[in-house]
Amino acid sequence: MESDTITAISTPIGEGAIAIVRLSGPEAIEIANQLFDGKSLIDVDSHTIHYGKIIDPSTKQVAEEVMVTVMKGPKTFTREDVVEINCHGGLVSVNRLLEIVLAQGARLAEPGEFTKRAFLNGRIDLSQAEAVMDLIRAKTDRAMNVALKQMDGRLSQLIQKLRQELLETVAHVEVNIDYPEYDDVEEMSHQMMIGKTREVYREIERLLEVAKQGKILREGLSTAIIGRPNVGKSSLMNALVHENKAIVTEVPGTTRDVIEEYVNVRGVPLRLVDTAGIRETEDIVERIGVEKSRQVLKESDLILLVLNHGEELTQEDLNLFKAVEGLEVVVIVNKTDLPQKINLEKVKELAADHSVITTALIEEKGIDDLEKAISETFFEGDLDAGDLTYVSNVRHIQLLKQALQALSDAMEGMENQMPIDLVQIDVTRTWEILGEIIGDTVHESLIDQLFSQFCLGK
Amino acid sequence: MESDTITAISTPIGEGAIAIVRLSGPEAIEIANQLFDGKSLIDVDSHTIHYGKIIDPSTKQVAEEVMVTVMKGPKTFTREDVVEINCHGGLVSVNRLLEIVLAQGARLAEPGEFTKRAFLNGRIDLSQAEAVMDLIRAKTDRAMNVALKQMDGRLSQLIQKLRQELLETVAHVEVNIDYPEYDDVEEMSHQMMIGKTREVYREIERLLEVAKQGKILREGLSTAIIGRPNVGKSSLMNALVHENKAIVTEVPGTTRDVIEEYVNVRGVPLRLVDTAGIRETEDIVERIGVEKSRQVLKESDLILLVLNHGEELTQEDLNLFKAVEGLEVVVIVNKTDLPQKINLEKVKELAADHSVITTALIEEKGIDDLEKAISETFFEGDLDAGDLTYVSNVRHIQLLKQALQALSDAMEGMENQMPIDLVQIDVTRTWEILGEIIGDTVHESLIDQLFSQFCLGK
Repeated sequence: MESDTITAISTPIGEGAIAIVRLSGPEAIEIANQLFDGKSLIDVDSHTIHYGKIIDPSTKQVAEEVMVTVMKGPKTFTREDVVEINCHGGLVSVNRLLEIVLAQGARLAEPGEFTKRAFLNGRIDLSQAEAVMDLIRAKTDRAMNVALKQMDGRLSQLIQKLRQELLETVAHVEVNIDYPEYDDVEEMSHQMMIGKTREVYREIERLLEVAKQGKILREGLSTAIIGRPNVGKSSLMNALVHENKAIVTEVPGTTRDVIEEYVNVRGVPLRLVDTAGIRETEDIVERIGVEKSRQVLKESDLILLVLNHGEELTQEDLNLFKAVEGLEVVVIVNKTDLPQKINLEKVKELAADHSVITTALIEEKGIDDLEKAISETFFEGDLDAGDLTYVSNVRHIQLLKQALQALSDAMEGMENQMPIDLVQIDVTRTWEILGEIIGDTVHESLIDQLFSQFCLGK
Repeated sequence: MESDTITAISTPIGEGAIAIVRLSGPEAIEIANQLFDGKSLIDVDSHTIHYGKIIDPSTKQVAEEVMVTVMKGPKTFTREDVVEINCHGGLVSVNRLLEIVLAQGARLAEPGEFTKRAFLNGRIDLSQAEAVMDLIRAKTDRAMNVALKQMDGRLSQLIQKLRQELLETVAHVEVNIDYPEYDDVEEMSHQMMIGKTREVYREIERLLEVAKQGKILREGLSTAIIGRPNVGKSSLMNALVHENKAIVTEVPGTTRDVIEEYVNVRGVPLRLVDTAGIRETEDIVERIGVEKSRQVLKESDLILLVLNHGEELTQEDLNLFKAVEGLEVVVIVNKTDLPQKINLEKVKELAADHSVITTALIEEKGIDDLEKAISETFFEGDLDAGDLTYVSNVRHIQLLKQALQALSDAMEGMENQMPIDLVQIDVTRTWEILGEIIGDTVHESLIDQLFSQFCLGK
């Protein structure tokens, strides 16, 4: 256990009815009690809440009217003593409270430090800890369900199962090597090893197959809307935002410009290029030959290419099709309220295997089809995220890929009839790599870095 | 008591470790219990907190991992049963939880409805309720102290004392009128009435005298920085923002453009004209003769007029002085790092009774003096807000002014030897007007309107 007491504001920053300053550590209750004008917090039962006032020791004045929750370890989030001081949710109010608590001897928690303690004290493993942050940052219900399942230990259990199988195999082989009474030990070992590793290999492959979807749910799709002027790009943007509540999140630690806006399209978070961006994409149309513009498109996960139903295809349209070759595209033929002049056969030919949707956005027609097409580009059918164990975290995906490589090395070794104790090294390496996902075999510096990406107060 | 159960998100909207969905009303505990996978919340003691999961009845799936606080009335904020569900502080997470609670039969609370119930159920009076919101919106420590004192009932007690005195006077006069056995009743009544009303009058006058300062603490000073190009307006802005943490608040119910930014200058919140605004004020310099520009300046509470120490006064500078005549101005002679060319005597003459400060903002010199000058323009000395009962609310100020007028009418009547029962009408009216401040004599529609200005979840 860590020996000091940490504190932070645990509610979002802004104006609200209630804000919380949380403390965790051996002195949490003592510190709160010294500031509290009310019952003795040292004598109260665990998991009780008490009304009172916070007195600023430096001025002896009432600093806030509060409700204080006392939770004694180990039945707490961090397994340490935890105190939550609920105060009025104003900026001055909660900052003043935090300052008083700091002056009384608590240390300002680093981002993620509460969760880090939960991990270090063995309450949750690393993938569960990471899920806590994913849950907070979740942009859609689906994404939240993925995080919730992971937090509940679904991924951890699967990883642990795979590690257990690898471990048993290795142990078994060790025994065989140590007791080579039988002639066929080498072969038996090979046989068992091949069977087991193949199973684990398939399981990891399966995880990686849906990982792309997990990653989309977690991070959203950066989506560019392109098309000639006046084809209805703004209408498209408005329709998507209007139909789907926009989710606005501020990117922590940056200036206010970097506000990210997402729309939730059937559980898929789209990060739309904003209005300023639309102007940019109009520039893209003009400078379509320029390599840099192509680069912008290539960085998008999804392109919505808008055409005008009431006009013939132009050279500019053809250029756009060329620019998005090899990317994920949904083609939208807008303005079906105008008499058809566009050659739809030609459009479908150009679109190749991408979806082509017709819309009259101004009359709110075709939006459903469009959303379906977007969703189906990345998810087959109406998958419930709850049905699968999604890997959504880039770190986990990287580790799974490394594990797959290590296993593949092992399998190649077996095929080439390499000595079993050499093959075993690769299997053990796989076991270690998988351990990094749940934090069993992981370096301290990595842990520090992981938790530093958390928000304050968590 | 109201008969339904209300709910709302009570923490600020955004990403944080913890968010709270609060319920209040007769069904609060029942509703929470139906959703809760954990202990029976109906059987638990009041003021206890419990770990568990929220199950969405529509999907039977786990919707969130939560801590639930159960507080049974009447020892609660609203005097009703109150349940606070602490969930993970993500946007999706807390909105999902709110939706589930609503689906279970709670009604979405109107802004301020929790506090309104606290008022209607007699836990706090109207001025205390208003202080709750002031406390949340407080921009500086001083402003928060004013709100805290008001919430604690300091203003209410004073108003009640004044009303009591008026009431006793009226009662006394009534008795005298009803028992006119003595000849000098009329005169005695007059004498007493004059004495008492004068006392109350002085007390209200005193409240109004410091009310302007209370209002500044509550609402901040809208501050315009003006000056010719290149005198250091941006440096001034940066210096103020740099030295004093900027307080950013979003104006509720509006788009994100209307973010208000305050800097805390010795407890006085300044709302600085933003960068775009600085460009505007440069325009002002160019079009200084235009009436509309003068209007902009007149709407500011404070003008910071910046001059260049290294240049002679120009006609433009003189025009600026003319434009700010009659307004609150602090004159800043910047760039004392340059050799003096400005005529300081002339500047002081033009500034008349306004402060003149010399600064070298680029070298961070003179900022302290400037802050002192700003503070002293509105507050004499280093007043502690805690020493006075500040009236800060415009509604209260209006009512106090009306009360003063009614009392003045009464006193005029007495001087003109009007019959005592006529004079008494004005005194009773004063009593009623003061009652509106604390909500004793107030219309329902006003109450609705007042609480609608609250933030959600309070």
